Amino acid sequence: MGKKIACVLTNNFEDSEYSEPAKAFKEAGHEVTVIGFEKGSTITGEHGTKVTADASIADVKPEDFDALFIPGGFSPDQLRADDRFVAFAKAFMDADKGVFAICHGPQLLITADVLKDRKATGYKSIVQDLKNAGVKFQDEEVVVCHNLVTSRTPDDIPAFNRESLKVLA
Amino acid sequence: MGKKIACVLTNNFEDSEYSEPAKAFKEAGHEVTVIGFEKGSTITGEHGTKVTADASIADVKPEDFDALFIPGGFSPDQLRADDRFVAFAKAFMDADKGVFAICHGPQLLITADVLKDRKATGYKSIVQDLKNAGVKFQDEEVVVCHNLVTSRTPDDIPAFNRESLKVLA
Repeated sequence: MGKKIACVLTNNFEDSEYSEPAKAFKEAGHEVTVIGFEKGSTITGEHGTKVTADASIADVKPEDFDALFIPGGFSPDQLRADDRFVAFAKAFMDADKGVFAICHGPQLLITADVLKDRKATGYKSIVQDLKNAGVKFQDEEVVVCHNLVTSRTPDDIPAFNRESLKVLA
Repeated sequence: MGKKIACVLTNNFEDSEYSEPAKAFKEAGHEVTVIGFEKGSTITGEHGTKVTADASIADVKPEDFDALFIPGGFSPDQLRADDRFVAFAKAFMDADKGVFAICHGPQLLITADVLKDRKATGYKSIVQDLKNAGVKFQDEEVVVCHNLVTSRTPDDIPAFNRESLKVLA
């Protein structure tokens, strides 16, 4: 049975870190809803990929979704400057729902203050931030900590997809 | 007597956070050397400002400069993924030289692990990272902690320039 996945996204996301997992999730029968600042707005990746926001953060509730997907690039840093995205992400972690964060994606979870004593990984530039947030950092292509799946870079996408799909199963 | 200021910079810096302090420093008689990944390369700001790198990080030594200037935007996050920029920044803090960081600029100092128990500020998205790094965070237009001057956004530039110039005096 397909699950409902909330994908939080804004401009300058890392293109493949959205496109490839979203494709894999949909092919496995799951539904991906892109949540941005404004419904219907066009969101542009670092390399030019265009994505239309299906919904605004103003109009969604965590209860309406089974899992959260946070692509990387410079998108997460902008999302976490908005308290609504921070609260939204925190709700998934508090409810022990699937949370899939790649590259800079864990930045949103750091601001939500939900990573203490969790095993996780992330892009090189945020490693010290992860450690300071209480993460048991692991330099692996994918780290699974119960509901939380994290990866480092686009090279890790196959492993990221594989483990995220297991959590969704 | 003019001081030698090292400015570490790469693409997607916040334009005004480089241009305006650099102008103020030069007008006060100081010398600003832009240090990028490659000497002579063109570095482009988020809003299109073009800056030529005077030197490569491969060719500079902290001993050749009196102070460090770290503009914000998405530049610092890319710099801190390179261990050479991290070591360069750490050397200024360890030597108690002037360090001027605005917006996302303190990210480089977090990775250098030099902010514990220091008073500082920064852009909203990195506030939790600063607190987790041991910073005594203050939501002020400028925070001066001995040699370290930090500000939050382009709106804070006048205060940032004023206090940085005092440290250089």
